[in-house]
Amino acid sequence: MVSPLTMQASERDDYYMLRAIRLARQGLYTTSPNPRVGCVLVRDDEVVGEGFHRFAGEGHAEVNALAVAGEQAKGATAYVTLEPCSHTGRTGPCCEALVKAGVVRVVVAMQDPNPAVDGGGTHFLRAHNIAVVCGVQEATARALNPGFIKRMTSGLPLVTAKLAMSVDGRTAMQSGESQWITGPAARSQVQRLRARSCAIVTGVGSILHDDSSLTVRVSELSLDDAEQICRRQPLRVIMDSGLRTPVTAKILQQPGRTVIAYCRDDQERRAALVAAGAELIQLPCRDDRVDGRALLRWLASEQQCNEVLLEAGSQLAGNWLGQGLIDELQLFMAAKLLGSKARPLFSLPLDTMKEQVALDISDIRAVGNDWLISAKPQIIDEQCAVKAPSDEAESH
Amino acid sequence: MVSPLTMQASERDDYYMLRAIRLARQGLYTTSPNPRVGCVLVRDDEVVGEGFHRFAGEGHAEVNALAVAGEQAKGATAYVTLEPCSHTGRTGPCCEALVKAGVVRVVVAMQDPNPAVDGGGTHFLRAHNIAVVCGVQEATARALNPGFIKRMTSGLPLVTAKLAMSVDGRTAMQSGESQWITGPAARSQVQRLRARSCAIVTGVGSILHDDSSLTVRVSELSLDDAEQICRRQPLRVIMDSGLRTPVTAKILQQPGRTVIAYCRDDQERRAALVAAGAELIQLPCRDDRVDGRALLRWLASEQQCNEVLLEAGSQLAGNWLGQGLIDELQLFMAAKLLGSKARPLFSLPLDTMKEQVALDISDIRAVGNDWLISAKPQIIDEQCAVKAPSDEAESH
Repeated sequence: MVSPLTMQASERDDYYMLRAIRLARQGLYTTSPNPRVGCVLVRDDEVVGEGFHRFAGEGHAEVNALAVAGEQAKGATAYVTLEPCSHTGRTGPCCEALVKAGVVRVVVAMQDPNPAVDGGGTHFLRAHNIAVVCGVQEATARALNPGFIKRMTSGLPLVTAKLAMSVDGRTAMQSGESQWITGPAARSQVQRLRARSCAIVTGVGSILHDDSSLTVRVSELSLDDAEQICRRQPLRVIMDSGLRTPVTAKILQQPGRTVIAYCRDDQERRAALVAAGAELIQLPCRDDRVDGRALLRWLASEQQCNEVLLEAGSQLAGNWLGQGLIDELQLFMAAKLLGSKARPLFSLPLDTMKEQVALDISDIRAVGNDWLISAKPQIIDEQCAVKAPSDEAESH
Repeated sequence: MVSPLTMQASERDDYYMLRAIRLARQGLYTTSPNPRVGCVLVRDDEVVGEGFHRFAGEGHAEVNALAVAGEQAKGATAYVTLEPCSHTGRTGPCCEALVKAGVVRVVVAMQDPNPAVDGGGTHFLRAHNIAVVCGVQEATARALNPGFIKRMTSGLPLVTAKLAMSVDGRTAMQSGESQWITGPAARSQVQRLRARSCAIVTGVGSILHDDSSLTVRVSELSLDDAEQICRRQPLRVIMDSGLRTPVTAKILQQPGRTVIAYCRDDQERRAALVAAGAELIQLPCRDDRVDGRALLRWLASEQQCNEVLLEAGSQLAGNWLGQGLIDELQLFMAAKLLGSKARPLFSLPLDTMKEQVALDISDIRAVGNDWLISAKPQIIDEQCAVKAPSDEAESH
């Protein structure tokens, strides 16, 4: 391996920042609603401390690294994947801690995306005579927190739709039968998608048809720290315009919170569901179903959700796609054909080739016996978006 | 590079056979209806002659290699990718030529798959005191001629179905509109699929809707020897039960032959189509359409077709798939969604997950901006096969 000692200054900055990014990744499944952040402290070309943020409410990356470094932080350079905070959150501001510890230089991969912060952290550091470099390995650092960045800049979470389909693009038989299209390796990958999400959204059809739990399960996660990860269960959300979720639904008996988003009230049903353990949120109706955009705004602003996973059938997924609410697609494709009567990938009635939805496919890879297609739909203008029928008679 | 001189005897055999296989590949697009064959002559670890079969009616690989070697063939070892012929075809038997030239050892990758030959070539050589080794690099050699082997062993050609689809598994809009789902790189790949085929089969719907030509075109082939390849145009076949092909169809004005396979006669239409340049073949009806299996038997036995390319819409493709007539799928997938009203990949009405058609996906790769999925459907028991509606109201 090349030693940092033989590197040029800028190569050294890249080297240590990539180390900080690797540390930050260790928080992939646990920091929600906070961003994933890593920090490396270097003095005289020696790492004297490093840390990352693991759980909201616990130490920030900088504080954890400073605790390791102790007295050795004096005169050190700090490499941080995200601009250190200057406000007081649940833990004290990291900028002050860096100054107090005697750090002389701070290298930052990216500024805080919150426009309200507007470089507050770097201003603070510079005002205390600390040299600040910004933008080292920025693209890689941004990829750590796509949902956090989107929420801070747009007030909406990043929405990833996960669907399991056949090669002929079918997600279930006409009857709704769909277990199991994909195999255990794909299902384990879905568990990891759930684990990194702040919230998982489904339609009431999936609850009625499959009695889905939407939990992250230690046994299926195939990760070393699965037990720790499962301590945090993503928020579960059921799109249920008319409160049809059964009080006996399995999803209501799982650890963590289940929210039912409805738009047509029924006081009796509501009381029964609350008694069964659900939280309820009334949102505006749009074409007789819960307005997806209103839900996403609520998830971002009231629940601090960065990444939302949509696990729904073709109706709800098609409706959100048509409204331009889906940022990324994770399509698990099984090596089979389900035939022309089976349910479509997206309920999306288009008439001419001109209306086609372009995708940007970034990756296709094997996952066990299945294949995973990662793609982004092009931005759909909501004015032109088509209307899909009710989301409620569906399954995933 | 490792020199053959330093190799062990069996490694040397592999080495020269792989060279013969590479030569054989040069005939990929031109040898039909003959197999692709290559030959290398080696004396004292020196290649003294090599050749391959290019066009039916021209020299076989062994004869071409012997012509290069001349007197130096005496005492040489011949490496041939396919057992040399002992019968007299359009050119003289190769076995006799090898004996006459003084070759002392013949290494063969695979026996002639024709059960009637039954090792006749190797028997002949051994009877003339020539040492024969069989089975060197056999799997690789077999992959040169999958269609020839299938025809010789089963009396049916190898059928590859090519379809262009969206990520959601759609091949055309409801109206039939389908130009262009995929881009130029995929279309060039389709040209190469056509070029290696003995026949291209389509439904009359494609003719009526798109006025397809189904030719191999020099400009789109993207191969150095495109002009030479295009000298041979694959046989074009239209599945047209009721003789609906227009006499003005472009396909009838192309170089090469066009056959219309029909099952319901109409003397007047027939005469008009013959006058327009078509050849006609009447075949049995099956569910009111031309019996696909009967067509394939005819193509194998009467037209010596090894590889047949099916370029059809979802109805005809679904019908053949349901009958178990498709050996391989080449699915060109464009990075787009065509929506839930668009036409399916295969018209294949299945009701339960148990009826699903399993695929063996051997490869998924990028082709320009599109993706190519190569797969084999599992064998479908024709007794269980479903019936699809008429193939005639379709386009590709």
